[in-house]
Amino acid sequence: MSMHKVIYDTDPGVDDAMALVFQALHPDIELLGLTSVFGNATIETTTRNARFLAGRFAAGVPVARGAAAPLRRAAPEPLAWIHGDNGLGNIALDTTEQAPLDARPAHRFIIDTVRAHPGEVTLLAVGPLTNLALALAGDPQIAPLVKQVVIMGGAFGTDGVLGNVTPAAEANILGDPDAADIVFGAAWPVAIVGLDVTQRTIMSHDYLASLRARGGAAGRFVWEVSRHYEAFHEQSAQLAGIYVHDSSAVAYVLAPHLYTTRSGPVRVLTDGIAVGQSIQKPSAMPVPAPDWDSRPDCKVCMAVDVPGMLALYENTICGTL
Amino acid sequence: MSMHKVIYDTDPGVDDAMALVFQALHPDIELLGLTSVFGNATIETTTRNARFLAGRFAAGVPVARGAAAPLRRAAPEPLAWIHGDNGLGNIALDTTEQAPLDARPAHRFIIDTVRAHPGEVTLLAVGPLTNLALALAGDPQIAPLVKQVVIMGGAFGTDGVLGNVTPAAEANILGDPDAADIVFGAAWPVAIVGLDVTQRTIMSHDYLASLRARGGAAGRFVWEVSRHYEAFHEQSAQLAGIYVHDSSAVAYVLAPHLYTTRSGPVRVLTDGIAVGQSIQKPSAMPVPAPDWDSRPDCKVCMAVDVPGMLALYENTICGTL
Repeated sequence: MSMHKVIYDTDPGVDDAMALVFQALHPDIELLGLTSVFGNATIETTTRNARFLAGRFAAGVPVARGAAAPLRRAAPEPLAWIHGDNGLGNIALDTTEQAPLDARPAHRFIIDTVRAHPGEVTLLAVGPLTNLALALAGDPQIAPLVKQVVIMGGAFGTDGVLGNVTPAAEANILGDPDAADIVFGAAWPVAIVGLDVTQRTIMSHDYLASLRARGGAAGRFVWEVSRHYEAFHEQSAQLAGIYVHDSSAVAYVLAPHLYTTRSGPVRVLTDGIAVGQSIQKPSAMPVPAPDWDSRPDCKVCMAVDVPGMLALYENTICGTL
Repeated sequence: MSMHKVIYDTDPGVDDAMALVFQALHPDIELLGLTSVFGNATIETTTRNARFLAGRFAAGVPVARGAAAPLRRAAPEPLAWIHGDNGLGNIALDTTEQAPLDARPAHRFIIDTVRAHPGEVTLLAVGPLTNLALALAGDPQIAPLVKQVVIMGGAFGTDGVLGNVTPAAEANILGDPDAADIVFGAAWPVAIVGLDVTQRTIMSHDYLASLRARGGAAGRFVWEVSRHYEAFHEQSAQLAGIYVHDSSAVAYVLAPHLYTTRSGPVRVLTDGIAVGQSIQKPSAMPVPAPDWDSRPDCKVCMAVDVPGMLALYENTICGTL
């Protein structure tokens, strides 16, 4: 029996793809569906990629097409220099096996699926949070029916990093700050793995080469899809490897003990020079803060067991769990 | 010969007082003057306290009275529950030896003193930055004549902390966000020791008791002035000791090698729910950020050699340098 029924809300994206393979191969996750969203690429590209990924690694799992743009802003430019022109590191995409496209928009798919499995669904969201905000708008009563919402997004400074797209903002949250502020304020349990924590986990050249050698078709795919991404990391950050963003959120679902968390409400700045910043009021903070105090606690990751996370991913891909 | 000619811009304040004793007793610092500012208490109280401190520990050093309120806002409430009703932990103040009050307002004292010692003056500012902003407004040409500006203020998240007064703001910067944004953007070298770093250095009960036992009159004063402050730390943070805020900025002046810094422009948010937050764009960040990119680099402390800092303070107070 699967422990986690997951809807994977995603904008593939190289690390989204690596996180999809992780979920598809781990026995404790049952994928109920993928919902696409703009972000790393246009909605057309991320939806095509989601269907390719599900078709190849998660047979029978449907894809629902999501938002093309944020709630109240223009869609950002695709991040082609990070994820490649096709969003998947410019690898060849054989779409003959692509997953079926659900007739419903992503937010309706989320609502219906949550209602069909009350208390059981994990929303694992690794792109802009527009689909989740639209689901809340469409049916506010779903919030307490969701088991948990696990998000890769934001940056909380624990390694001195508050953002990657701007000095104060991480791409997923900046992609739709209004949606993120809604999602963090809703009455469902939220856990956030921010950039400052995902960046501590690095897959080195050797680690990725080992996946290729030992991980069968999945390992070879992970290696192949990450070539362009690895070159980007080397060029932009002089990093001999790649940051493990979206797969860190998967690891949190599977093994939350790998992460140290802090509780407290989280707000997102929706305007000004720091638009897109996520700011938590730690629940231990003794002063009142009216803009935070009426909102539910979220769990924000402060630290990660890096070897533990890397071993979990490797053992999943290589079938050595 | 003294290595550092310092104007100490201060809102005493218990930790301000502890930092004044540190400066007065260290042979490498020559105090040119104290400038008072509102903050921990009203300007009347902080000016009285500055005169008391200079009179007792820095004979002949003048005090100039500074701003009573921020540039464009109302003055905050005194922090009596932290610093005591008199701003100095409710100790008895013998003001018979109080320092002379300079006839000039603080910003004019700063301008004149910088011009009298071009290239030599360190502005050591541990309160709201209103006096420094007024000095720049009164004589913009002083900026390149200042040796360095060393500030205790802000919080950069390296231990997960972005603020103490709000989830995003530290008291000194929130005290006058407009002034801080001006000061961080001026053409003088700025170094910032933020709350996230000052809070790592803790003077324990035993440490303070040792100062009392071994530090003569200065050590007994440090112990006495910190009783109320210590009780506040125990009550609010369950801390068996006190954070070393303002003295950390003194330590940075004396021994910058104790601090690891990061370069990059710093902006301060002047409105919204995160008003008062200081945000650095690290100079290594590869993306453009127009709101930061036109401004000079500041050095922001990321880490501190805690034993080294505590030894420097102790050896200064105890005369064992």
